[in-house]
Amino acid sequence: MKIKLCQLNFIVGDIEGNSSRIIHKINEGKKEGAEIVVFSELSLSGYPPKDLLKYPSFIDKCTHAIELIKQETEGICAIIGAPYYIVQDGKNYYNSAYVLHNKKCIKHYYKWLLPTYDVFDEARYFEAGETNPIFTLNGKQIAITICEDIWNEGVDKLYKQAPLDSIEADIDLIINLSASPFSYSHYEKRIEVIKAKVIRHNAPMVYVNQIGANAELIFDGGSLVMNSKGEITNKLAYFKEDSQVVDFPLKKSNISIPNIPKTQRIHDALIIGIRDYFNKLGFKKAVIGLSGGIDSAMVTYLAVKALGAENVLSVLLPSKFSSEHSVNDSIQLCENLNTPYQTISIEQTYEAVTKTLSPIFKNLPFDVTEENIQARSRGLILMALSNKFGYILLNTTNKSEAAVGYGTLYGDMCGGLAVLADVYKTELYEIANWVNTKNEIIPKNIITKAPSAELRPDQKDSDSLPDYDILDGILYSYIEETMGVEEIANNGYDLQTVERIVKMVNRNEYKRFQMAPVLRVSTNAFGFSRRMPLVGKY
Amino acid sequence: MKIKLCQLNFIVGDIEGNSSRIIHKINEGKKEGAEIVVFSELSLSGYPPKDLLKYPSFIDKCTHAIELIKQETEGICAIIGAPYYIVQDGKNYYNSAYVLHNKKCIKHYYKWLLPTYDVFDEARYFEAGETNPIFTLNGKQIAITICEDIWNEGVDKLYKQAPLDSIEADIDLIINLSASPFSYSHYEKRIEVIKAKVIRHNAPMVYVNQIGANAELIFDGGSLVMNSKGEITNKLAYFKEDSQVVDFPLKKSNISIPNIPKTQRIHDALIIGIRDYFNKLGFKKAVIGLSGGIDSAMVTYLAVKALGAENVLSVLLPSKFSSEHSVNDSIQLCENLNTPYQTISIEQTYEAVTKTLSPIFKNLPFDVTEENIQARSRGLILMALSNKFGYILLNTTNKSEAAVGYGTLYGDMCGGLAVLADVYKTELYEIANWVNTKNEIIPKNIITKAPSAELRPDQKDSDSLPDYDILDGILYSYIEETMGVEEIANNGYDLQTVERIVKMVNRNEYKRFQMAPVLRVSTNAFGFSRRMPLVGKY
Repeated sequence: MKIKLCQLNFIVGDIEGNSSRIIHKINEGKKEGAEIVVFSELSLSGYPPKDLLKYPSFIDKCTHAIELIKQETEGICAIIGAPYYIVQDGKNYYNSAYVLHNKKCIKHYYKWLLPTYDVFDEARYFEAGETNPIFTLNGKQIAITICEDIWNEGVDKLYKQAPLDSIEADIDLIINLSASPFSYSHYEKRIEVIKAKVIRHNAPMVYVNQIGANAELIFDGGSLVMNSKGEITNKLAYFKEDSQVVDFPLKKSNISIPNIPKTQRIHDALIIGIRDYFNKLGFKKAVIGLSGGIDSAMVTYLAVKALGAENVLSVLLPSKFSSEHSVNDSIQLCENLNTPYQTISIEQTYEAVTKTLSPIFKNLPFDVTEENIQARSRGLILMALSNKFGYILLNTTNKSEAAVGYGTLYGDMCGGLAVLADVYKTELYEIANWVNTKNEIIPKNIITKAPSAELRPDQKDSDSLPDYDILDGILYSYIEETMGVEEIANNGYDLQTVERIVKMVNRNEYKRFQMAPVLRVSTNAFGFSRRMPLVGKY
Repeated sequence: MKIKLCQLNFIVGDIEGNSSRIIHKINEGKKEGAEIVVFSELSLSGYPPKDLLKYPSFIDKCTHAIELIKQETEGICAIIGAPYYIVQDGKNYYNSAYVLHNKKCIKHYYKWLLPTYDVFDEARYFEAGETNPIFTLNGKQIAITICEDIWNEGVDKLYKQAPLDSIEADIDLIINLSASPFSYSHYEKRIEVIKAKVIRHNAPMVYVNQIGANAELIFDGGSLVMNSKGEITNKLAYFKEDSQVVDFPLKKSNISIPNIPKTQRIHDALIIGIRDYFNKLGFKKAVIGLSGGIDSAMVTYLAVKALGAENVLSVLLPSKFSSEHSVNDSIQLCENLNTPYQTISIEQTYEAVTKTLSPIFKNLPFDVTEENIQARSRGLILMALSNKFGYILLNTTNKSEAAVGYGTLYGDMCGGLAVLADVYKTELYEIANWVNTKNEIIPKNIITKAPSAELRPDQKDSDSLPDYDILDGILYSYIEETMGVEEIANNGYDLQTVERIVKMVNRNEYKRFQMAPVLRVSTNAFGFSRRMPLVGKY
């Protein structure tokens, strides 16, 4: 039996486009002699379709497309992820797999386990399935599962029951349709989970994941086939579209998955995150405010990798507080990347604003207000370039800054996409060093100098924040490990510092509320992944 | 039997404050001879606690507080909403009611129906309960339910089972602990739902809702007691804290609930929304950019009602495109409200920005870029005032504008709270006219003149948008009624206009993504209530 795995980059809501690509792959499969063609979870609608599911006209489109696809399945079986609608007590949708064969739907499978944590809101839309996952094709017993359905592992399970646990008969094959987004630690876990299942059920698994980014969510692909001993026999690419026809019974051949370092994984994910944000919105060009610091340097580098050097404009926006090395380092970076840059002073704007406000501010001292006026003058100029020439402004805030609110709302927090806001400052240095392994692309001085916002004379980040290794240690404990203040302090940090940092994180929820979508690389990203009260006392 | 209903304004996360207020009310109840004191849903943690529930230290605080409250229940029964933690297969939390009596917990009830739609994410945190809702006190059979538990009505029910449906024995009383947020249509529905339950189970209901606003969510209170015939015998206030001791068996007295018009309901809700946003964040003063249009006029009026005239600063920010009447109308409004105002020209800032950009923009024509520069210059100046003097800037975007993206990101979309972004322009006129019923508070000219952004000579909203009654009709069909393009056109709108407006709504998701929290008065508010894909093709 030949099975074709199709790992595609679907567009959310684009039923027409997605279905025509599905049909193309089905016909390709026919020519290749495949008996089954497998697509990823909710491939027809794109994942996640969110509140589009509330639109009856959207469901009608999906149903119509399924009918068209069905007509293409003469002599072949296609397994497609799509929403299934039925009026009933309980929610009226299932996250479903349609098994189409010889122009008929021979099986509807409904996903049992609906992830409703982190970025996932599936219980918002779907009723949990509870029917048998098995269908028979050409005498083979095949169990279908959808993504989370295979993830109910460990001692403190998230769900009370799971579809594969309900199976008593022998099965020949497990198929899993996934839309399993990237996070830097998800990669090994996924293989472990698949391994546990194939061994427990003594059956191989065909695992088909989607690739591509939909705003915050980055899907890394990595579809694979694993034999019943837990050996990977076939694998598809990471971070790009791929498909493969696999012959069953599987030949013995344990393919090893290279151990890609975390820095590289995040690097690759961010590039696809930028690329798809632009591609899917129909934009080509990015503009970035280049300060001379590591954040904007890395965004420029990543944007050049994602969009091409000619499609990225770096803008240096010096003020009287900008150091000479900031300008020089920025220029050096652009020359290394062979990408255009421009210098626009914010002095005139800053002077005009402060002069306008002087009758009201009178002799009040220079404070954070004037710092913010500089950052906002930069935002204003960058957005004007964006408007005039059709660039998307990329935001350069990193996760450490976003956490403690070290950034100006409507200033350096402007931008259509927050490229780095799920990457801690210390991680960013690691990625920069990794990028520089062969050649010095990111000028060394940008990596080694003390971070500064350069919004007042001789300012350093360390004037108001602890050193980044301490800051990031505390932030990681608080945000990723959900530790309390005392627990963090007990791990070797100064109690008062921990209290201060945690307060800063909580107090700055209002800034993050208005932040651009954050490319998610962790499981506690700002935005839809980590949902904290905006108004409260905690 | 005397039962005390406690309708309080709890603060999310403030376990110490919330529990001390609960204890205060228990002791008050003892003096009043109450046998039971009832609080609202998740009263201890505040509603919604969101991802605070992921913090073990937060749960420890809740557990500790319950122990302290328990010690206060000698001779009295207190029913308190709080999260319950237990390690198990399935999620480890229940949305629970603790029944405390004589220093013991005599019953844990777990909410069965977990709303996971609109702004609600309860399935993200809680496992659905499925145990018996009944406990016995002094020989009475009392069924506890939590909010949504009583809402499974109609022909196409949202849930497969509900706790009261599981009851076969006679019951003497139903108690419902709610955190049921305001929407302009929720008010009658709530009474209908309660009525259906008391009649079906032939038992009276004690319904305790919370009041106060937590960021977007506004809780309107309106707690009540209904007898088994469906007559309201006791009612608590709307939009303020209240408590009442009610004697059972109930005396016959059908209290009528006044039919408050929709305009007034929204008006009252917005005022409490503003007030609690400031109170709970520890701020007192608001700043508003006053344009001469209806939106900023209404925000100024509402802010004055919420915070006091002396705590609101209106700033007129004219440009060369501002009309004289805009300035005069704005001044008239401030004089009517007796609230301070200031005039700050944006001309210097606008000139500086355009001069700075002229070598790059060269002879390119005036377009939306220059319009946005004006709006962003205003945002920059208003935020400088906010920073220097500790004002919160209030955003004035209405729902019609937010829908079609008729506003400048980082310009007039600045602000800590979007007061009107769930109120359509046509609704806003209705509210303004209602406000003016007795005296002309909102200058008539502001209501009658043609809306204009005044960002280019003789600009009118109607240059690029259909008239607001048509626009709002289309938007209401698309957003509130989730109709498709063809269905809307079939209802009497021009197809091309509908297509264009729907495209504008979809295309401007990116602006709304970065918008301030929106005071929610409908069931399809922008923000957490309506979650559409940011990147997609639809």
